[in-house]
Amino acid sequence: MTQQAETINGYKKRAKQLVAQMTLKEKIHQMVHAAPAIERLNVKAYNWWNEGLHGVARAGTATIFPQAIGLAATFDEDLLQEVADAIATETRSKFNMQQRYGDTDIYKGLTLWAPNVNIFRDPRWGRGHETYGEDPHLTARLAVRFIRGLQGDDEKYLKTAACAKHFAVHSGPEDVRHSFNAVVSDKDLRETYLPAFKACVEEANVEAVMGAYNRTNDEPCCGSELLLEQILRGEWNFDGHVVSDCWAIRDFHLHHKVTANEVESVALAVKNGCDLNCGSLFLFLQDAVAQGLVTEEQIDKAVTRLFTTRFKLGLFDEPEQVPFSSIGYAETDSPAMKALNLTASRESLVLLKNDGLLPLDRSRFRTVGVIGPNANNRRALVGNYEGTASRYITPLEGLQDYLGDGVRVLYSEGCHLFQNKVGGLAQPGDRLAEAKGVCAESDLIVVCLGLDSGLEGEEGDIGNAFASGDKPNLDLPGQQEELLRIAHESGKPVVLVLLAGSALAVNYADAHIPAIVQGWYPGAQGGRAIAELLFGEYSPSAKLPVTFYRTTEELPAFTDYSMNNRTYRYMRSEALYPFGFGLTYGQIAIDSVELDADSVTESGIRAKVRLHNAGTLDASEVVQAYVRADSPGAPNAQLKAFRKVHVAAGTSVDTELTLPLDAFALYGEDGTTSIAADTNYTLHIGFSQPDARSVALTGRTPHSFTLTARTAEKSRFF
Amino acid sequence: MTQQAETINGYKKRAKQLVAQMTLKEKIHQMVHAAPAIERLNVKAYNWWNEGLHGVARAGTATIFPQAIGLAATFDEDLLQEVADAIATETRSKFNMQQRYGDTDIYKGLTLWAPNVNIFRDPRWGRGHETYGEDPHLTARLAVRFIRGLQGDDEKYLKTAACAKHFAVHSGPEDVRHSFNAVVSDKDLRETYLPAFKACVEEANVEAVMGAYNRTNDEPCCGSELLLEQILRGEWNFDGHVVSDCWAIRDFHLHHKVTANEVESVALAVKNGCDLNCGSLFLFLQDAVAQGLVTEEQIDKAVTRLFTTRFKLGLFDEPEQVPFSSIGYAETDSPAMKALNLTASRESLVLLKNDGLLPLDRSRFRTVGVIGPNANNRRALVGNYEGTASRYITPLEGLQDYLGDGVRVLYSEGCHLFQNKVGGLAQPGDRLAEAKGVCAESDLIVVCLGLDSGLEGEEGDIGNAFASGDKPNLDLPGQQEELLRIAHESGKPVVLVLLAGSALAVNYADAHIPAIVQGWYPGAQGGRAIAELLFGEYSPSAKLPVTFYRTTEELPAFTDYSMNNRTYRYMRSEALYPFGFGLTYGQIAIDSVELDADSVTESGIRAKVRLHNAGTLDASEVVQAYVRADSPGAPNAQLKAFRKVHVAAGTSVDTELTLPLDAFALYGEDGTTSIAADTNYTLHIGFSQPDARSVALTGRTPHSFTLTARTAEKSRFF
Repeated sequence: MTQQAETINGYKKRAKQLVAQMTLKEKIHQMVHAAPAIERLNVKAYNWWNEGLHGVARAGTATIFPQAIGLAATFDEDLLQEVADAIATETRSKFNMQQRYGDTDIYKGLTLWAPNVNIFRDPRWGRGHETYGEDPHLTARLAVRFIRGLQGDDEKYLKTAACAKHFAVHSGPEDVRHSFNAVVSDKDLRETYLPAFKACVEEANVEAVMGAYNRTNDEPCCGSELLLEQILRGEWNFDGHVVSDCWAIRDFHLHHKVTANEVESVALAVKNGCDLNCGSLFLFLQDAVAQGLVTEEQIDKAVTRLFTTRFKLGLFDEPEQVPFSSIGYAETDSPAMKALNLTASRESLVLLKNDGLLPLDRSRFRTVGVIGPNANNRRALVGNYEGTASRYITPLEGLQDYLGDGVRVLYSEGCHLFQNKVGGLAQPGDRLAEAKGVCAESDLIVVCLGLDSGLEGEEGDIGNAFASGDKPNLDLPGQQEELLRIAHESGKPVVLVLLAGSALAVNYADAHIPAIVQGWYPGAQGGRAIAELLFGEYSPSAKLPVTFYRTTEELPAFTDYSMNNRTYRYMRSEALYPFGFGLTYGQIAIDSVELDADSVTESGIRAKVRLHNAGTLDASEVVQAYVRADSPGAPNAQLKAFRKVHVAAGTSVDTELTLPLDAFALYGEDGTTSIAADTNYTLHIGFSQPDARSVALTGRTPHSFTLTARTAEKSRFF
Repeated sequence: MTQQAETINGYKKRAKQLVAQMTLKEKIHQMVHAAPAIERLNVKAYNWWNEGLHGVARAGTATIFPQAIGLAATFDEDLLQEVADAIATETRSKFNMQQRYGDTDIYKGLTLWAPNVNIFRDPRWGRGHETYGEDPHLTARLAVRFIRGLQGDDEKYLKTAACAKHFAVHSGPEDVRHSFNAVVSDKDLRETYLPAFKACVEEANVEAVMGAYNRTNDEPCCGSELLLEQILRGEWNFDGHVVSDCWAIRDFHLHHKVTANEVESVALAVKNGCDLNCGSLFLFLQDAVAQGLVTEEQIDKAVTRLFTTRFKLGLFDEPEQVPFSSIGYAETDSPAMKALNLTASRESLVLLKNDGLLPLDRSRFRTVGVIGPNANNRRALVGNYEGTASRYITPLEGLQDYLGDGVRVLYSEGCHLFQNKVGGLAQPGDRLAEAKGVCAESDLIVVCLGLDSGLEGEEGDIGNAFASGDKPNLDLPGQQEELLRIAHESGKPVVLVLLAGSALAVNYADAHIPAIVQGWYPGAQGGRAIAELLFGEYSPSAKLPVTFYRTTEELPAFTDYSMNNRTYRYMRSEALYPFGFGLTYGQIAIDSVELDADSVTESGIRAKVRLHNAGTLDASEVVQAYVRADSPGAPNAQLKAFRKVHVAAGTSVDTELTLPLDAFALYGEDGTTSIAADTNYTLHIGFSQPDARSVALTGRTPHSFTLTARTAEKSRFF
């Protein structure tokens, strides 16, 4: 037994002993998110509900990093871990302070309900910006590192407890999430929806998993035997606790109607391994035990799991024993945190188009017009599940600060984010004349469009009256495209900055606007990073973690969970901007790729890649490896390895990608995997997907290799 | 006849000729705020409704100066005119641009419905921050100069048209304004409620007057024979047009119930001299004429007045003839405007208390805590009737920018502005622990409390659910005082910055906090001005234009319009902070006062005042002259002259105040005025009122002179 396993066994033993001293009622009260104190046992009150998707959320001042989708766009595993470690530091910093003042309220514990590793299956989903995008491999790689950052590497204690959510097959529609049944094939389940969760459990030892609101193949996720018992705990040997999504258990009888009442609902959840209730319905467990629907042993198992987590967090040890207890409040929102946040913002911005306009030369401009509803919108910096920043820098503010007093910056909101006017009594288009006036006076126009979390978000969000958080289509809302046309038709050079957590079908922009930056929700200092990008203070390096489709019409029905014709892996039409795509200011090329074999073997494949930056600017690139099996029904070339590499101007850098055997796995209809031994595989290594659109957009063709599989057929990789 | 009178007669003639060519229907359509084009007569569409209370409002980007109450606190007539001139420049700048693009929508014309010269009778009134405070003299002096600034001094054309509102006797309650009957004595009417309007008309030639929503002594103001016919046009010879408040005419039959229906309402308004309807009810004039309730001659008179205003604005002359047509769009929000705005902000901040803590020495602080719901609240910078700034600088941002990287700034929202928690699911006081944490880490704490226009404002404001815009009492809302106690009890030095458009009973702060700044709604760059004040970049110079009462209980009923026991002029209790009070960093004293007579004569009194600044900081002071008659029932000493004077460190400055005869007028119960010939008057000249509280707070006693009146009794000064 390893040292770590021994430590954990020790916690389990202590948890078991503690739970053994509790009455049934006490135990049950520990199974809701606001767990009360049990003073005679020295158990303090603990509120399990905390959020840290991209910074400590909803608990006051914190560093607000780019929204998750922007973190995904960095394609930078190391950065994800660094950001998560920072979040964990601030969580501990704030926790230590709050404990000092006896504040054990919601959002003040050490159990963070992040990351969200759902697959961003459909670009209309309002919560897609909480995810790492549409690709199982990218999501898994980033989530593993994010969880490692949150949980830390102390030998004895978790820094914080992470939670992979929402398990599983959850991606809208928001307005029906409490009654929806996601119907999914075994193939799609195993190939697309589960791999990220599997990696979180098996590789990152994620401490918690949250069940989803919906049913998946008829079972409510928070009480699903297949998902929780068979797969999560059976196949993957998950050793942590399962928490329900908030008030999800009551959906069982109220909306899913799979149970008759509260008692049956809580019984179904606990019997299938849901240990903790976000909400308070689990208090009906008292009746469920009385009625024989749940045994006290089942309760004990759940409560023991919960207390094991609390022991792992050091909540029952003396502060002197727990190294994180010494993190002072000054660590929160510190200068070092601000610097890391700026780095993350810079790395998250995707340059979608550049007809040579960028980087801008400051000395060329006397007047810069900044227009659009997202130019000075703090909300569009942070997305949802956000904390409070001590300083917000919008694109307008970032440009004002960057340009200083020597350049005049003119501003017009231009139009409302989604309504047809800004003022209630005005005629539609009440800021368009002003936008024309600004364009007429300016040498350069920066148009800031997109969405914010008032538009794309979660069912029930306050102020989110726009399709319950989902997007009705992929268009720029309201008058935004008209505003963009005004800017273009002014004849002045135009840069479009999109702040949005999802793909928009910006066909007009692609056809007419010389420079486009996809900024996601770039974090509290995002406007500074955007200004610095536009004026060439650094080279953009991010890539799209989602496909930008050309039309809404080509999408399958939003309620259809089949992957057929969805995401870059299965789509049949050409993307406007493909997954994996993003431009830089550098001139990095791949000089050579060497494979260690021309066949796939049991140990997979390793590729040595030499990069050279022939330009005059330091830059980073994301080396991406895509694999495609030449067999009927196989998906398009899929991302199977990637690495972000910095290459200083005029230098060469060697790097390596590893493609393990399961990078070549093909999924059968029953969800099992195999290697197609008699089939050619094509391996593409470059800075994008190998499709024609990516090649046209980047001007570079990935290196391609044809491989055959020599390994024996191998099923059930996972 | 003067040149100017000739020019105006020319406009009247042209207006009459133009109106003569219109059909009745055409004329009537010109009497609503959205007046349509009459193409055959080359009459363009014109929307009369525009706002410019403290910057061009609701029409996009503009310079957002301090709210009116803050402008009043400057006690600086020259500055008021300069600010208004700047607003007029931006109005023309935007108008010229918008005309170019054919945008003639609401908020885009040249008729600004400002200033609001209502007397801030009761500190609970939600719209009090739109006014110049509680004093008739101060209000009149500032309004006259503001109107001159808006209307300009061109010989032929108005720069913009100003509008004195709301005529008359209008100051809440907001929630009953559409049905309320303000009952007021002749004395209070003439002494308190009308003088500012009289000055606007007689001294500033204000082009428009807006009627109020309420009834005054039973007559609805927008159709009041007494107010509009007898006083405004009869006594004061008002030569401009009268506009109704918005949708006020329908209140006649719907809420005031003084008429039976729409037709009677519009007839009543027009017959009594209301020329323009904000709204569209005046379209019923067609029926009113048909029914013989209004004559076409009465319509003609109104429409001619309206077109006379349009002629005065140059709307029917070639652009080349109108000098303001050449104002380019670049004048809006220009660097010069920003500089003027910062000056206005600096001049508007009142230092209420300073136990020697201020000015702060930057080198003494390593960590500064900034806490409170108004620390980073953009809305609290601008009040209501606001435009959109191109840059907001909150107190938090101002302090961050001022202190730079060398000083750590910690921030906590501390509490919600008025609710008992910030987060919906949290327990009450969910940011108090954080505030404690910030205080514990800080060497200095700046607490930013108060209100914003979501709390104090107008009936019907979106998002204003707090007593329909009025304040229920004078307390700091929600948990703000608790937050202040936390800061104080931390033992660290605390500065309180209040952003609010009205007086709050901050007794705890007065007793415990060493430094208090009343910031009003200080304008878009207010946070910078606040930071610079705290760190001694300049000396504060503003004075209170309203009384800060100690309790809500001492106030008369909110619906009681009697001045008895109201405002510094009639209050009997001691103020917490009196009208006219404000500290500086300077050491300016009055060396000598010389009067040109020891008796009041027909020509009044002139006072020569010598100021000396014995300190090391340049500073400004407001020399204030108060007059009190030693006769039963006479008001407390009243402000009758003031002048803001800048005195460089170590220098002396001579200035002069003029007190005309009517500064000594006493009002009888019938509203007539007289000089009490057999009575002693006391004249106080200093930097505050002469009351004991002001003397205690400032440490300076005004110079006092006893005068007798030698002039003959003189009635009806106005």
